[in-house]
Amino acid sequence: MKSKITEISGAINKPKGFLASGVSCGIKKNNLPDLALIVSENDSKACGVFTKNIVKGHSLQRTMNTIKSGICRAVVINSGNANACVGQKGYDDAQKMARFVADKLNISPDKVLTGSTGVIGQNLPMDKIESGVEKAISALDCSEQSGHDSQYAIMTTDTKTKEKCLLIDINGHDVYIAGMAKGSGMIHPDMATMISIITTDCNISGDLLNHSLHKVINKSFNRISVDGDTSVCDMVILLANCKAENPEITSTLSPEYFIFEEALEILCIDLAKKIAQDGEGATKLVEINVLNAKNENDAYLILQSVSKSPLVKTAMFGEDANWGRIITAMGYSGAKFDPEICDIYIGDLNVCKNGSAVNFDETLAKAILQKPEINLSIDLKQGEIKDTMWTSDFSYEYVKINGSYRS
Amino acid sequence: MKSKITEISGAINKPKGFLASGVSCGIKKNNLPDLALIVSENDSKACGVFTKNIVKGHSLQRTMNTIKSGICRAVVINSGNANACVGQKGYDDAQKMARFVADKLNISPDKVLTGSTGVIGQNLPMDKIESGVEKAISALDCSEQSGHDSQYAIMTTDTKTKEKCLLIDINGHDVYIAGMAKGSGMIHPDMATMISIITTDCNISGDLLNHSLHKVINKSFNRISVDGDTSVCDMVILLANCKAENPEITSTLSPEYFIFEEALEILCIDLAKKIAQDGEGATKLVEINVLNAKNENDAYLILQSVSKSPLVKTAMFGEDANWGRIITAMGYSGAKFDPEICDIYIGDLNVCKNGSAVNFDETLAKAILQKPEINLSIDLKQGEIKDTMWTSDFSYEYVKINGSYRS
Repeated sequence: MKSKITEISGAINKPKGFLASGVSCGIKKNNLPDLALIVSENDSKACGVFTKNIVKGHSLQRTMNTIKSGICRAVVINSGNANACVGQKGYDDAQKMARFVADKLNISPDKVLTGSTGVIGQNLPMDKIESGVEKAISALDCSEQSGHDSQYAIMTTDTKTKEKCLLIDINGHDVYIAGMAKGSGMIHPDMATMISIITTDCNISGDLLNHSLHKVINKSFNRISVDGDTSVCDMVILLANCKAENPEITSTLSPEYFIFEEALEILCIDLAKKIAQDGEGATKLVEINVLNAKNENDAYLILQSVSKSPLVKTAMFGEDANWGRIITAMGYSGAKFDPEICDIYIGDLNVCKNGSAVNFDETLAKAILQKPEINLSIDLKQGEIKDTMWTSDFSYEYVKINGSYRS
Repeated sequence: MKSKITEISGAINKPKGFLASGVSCGIKKNNLPDLALIVSENDSKACGVFTKNIVKGHSLQRTMNTIKSGICRAVVINSGNANACVGQKGYDDAQKMARFVADKLNISPDKVLTGSTGVIGQNLPMDKIESGVEKAISALDCSEQSGHDSQYAIMTTDTKTKEKCLLIDINGHDVYIAGMAKGSGMIHPDMATMISIITTDCNISGDLLNHSLHKVINKSFNRISVDGDTSVCDMVILLANCKAENPEITSTLSPEYFIFEEALEILCIDLAKKIAQDGEGATKLVEINVLNAKNENDAYLILQSVSKSPLVKTAMFGEDANWGRIITAMGYSGAKFDPEICDIYIGDLNVCKNGSAVNFDETLAKAILQKPEINLSIDLKQGEIKDTMWTSDFSYEYVKINGSYRS
């Protein structure tokens, strides 16, 4: 049987009817790309998920309002400046940035979403943004290179690109879904940690589009942590322009919805893991599994606590099988569990049984911890809930990067 | 007018009727001191505050039970081994350790409190503990050196001693209160981060002793953070043997109670700050003040969030006036406040006004941040509540110490 979901090469403008570009407009030094534009030829359905930080960047706040209509033609994002904490001028500038795009495309500014990522507390250089938008409009096309260019233009401290493209078979129609992300693992609140744009040509109702994004977010972007700081500019935007012409998906119970959600989940988990893996100074990707929890809340509390613990993260960097730090972080997580029946595994190696030390093989533990990807599993033996989170280790490099960020 | 509270030199056995010793029994390498004993000649009133971590060390759990009687003659503490996560044998060993002391002093084991600090998941070497207790009993006296010895015997990764002694004038009686602590700033859950013992010869009712400790804890030991991890062996024990023979303090409204609580607060804040200052790899003590909060909870949430943020802490290490990280940490703290009216100060320098950037003097900011003690102030302008917390910066050294702790 033919697989319903296939990974293919391609960028954010792979789905039909999407165009993209990324240019340098002079916000960043050394002519680095810093302005990205993604345009749909027709009105797209649009939804988003935004930071819960009560301090919010001005470009993001504007988008939170604008997206309420559920319709979008273009997304414009600058990097190098977060457009945050600068007062009324910040809102005015976000609106201006949208209007630059709208005027050129001859559409309403209400159909243009805005995003900014970079240093907090500085005004956007609007002359540069204006000429940058002109350049970006001219560069718009559906070539893979232009798609990659838009990825480069939203990156800040990222050391790797984060892109994924999938082809889905829905009722015999070729449906594309593509995503890109920036962020070194939620570790840069002053740099608007994390932005992701996802495009699809799938024909799906606006309600279901929104439903799928919220559901998938909790298994992907809400399951990564680098230092637990959440940014003022975090956002994930999902656009669907329906150009694949599959029959509209209108029910969460339909097999077509199921396959769409599955593809979106594969895509988002992949992007989220790429962010965790690219955590500042990260040398390892750490996957943490909680097994057999009594309820979802307890599982999540434990995951958050363990994945944020600087002591667990430095132990991973030091390749030290120090499970005492894991059980300690579980203990102060706020989750209810019985420490005297839980087991802990590093990879497949059982290091703690029923809350007590196991006489394990340290050489074997070291070998597991030396790998670039590490699995930690915590079996609570109290129920049937399973949850997973990804984090990175804490290295010297992390301190170096973050000790002198603005200079 | 003569001051009612005077700082004097002295150690934990300065208050009348207290004896102390610290010896090496071979748990730690290189004959380092690892067993401390504090004894009161008569029955002391006793109270304690213990970790909220649901995983608890066995020696600590035993003490939580034993102290319910409110009476104590001796406290025995070993360092180098946390006696945690080893199952039933851990409880049995804690009980044995108490019995070794009780037998020698010819008292009930129920009057002996136990503490252990060190690596999790290893059994206590009971033969070493037994001979250690014998040595410690022989070494018991009221000399200042023996007091200091007991301080050394509870230290683990501490690089500095943490002791304080005060003389209080209560109704013309000389009342002494002395404290010692170990801990590199709540950063070592697997090392039982933080233990403090406080002794006084004050005559005070058991209820008020307990009341004073709980009140003062929230202004001192509960106001320090190094990395937000809370240990399985944290405890603070307060003993009062009444030997000063002042008239018993029985009312929280009496001037005598007021002066006692004030002295206890001075002592505990001093010990707490010494712990934060000695945070692993710390190069700076950072005091964070929240001003004019609407309520205590919001003030505390903001303090906790800012003082735990790895990004704020690395910025302090890097002497970078990156207030964007401070407002970001405030924003995700869970506290309710209006980000558009709050001000932020680094030392006396206003860097953010009404939630927006101020064009401040970077050279002046750098000069403030280069000092070993830094003040950050956050004015919420929403009420009248003030609160303070202490933390340390995050350095390369922190990663180094914690990356290879067990080896």
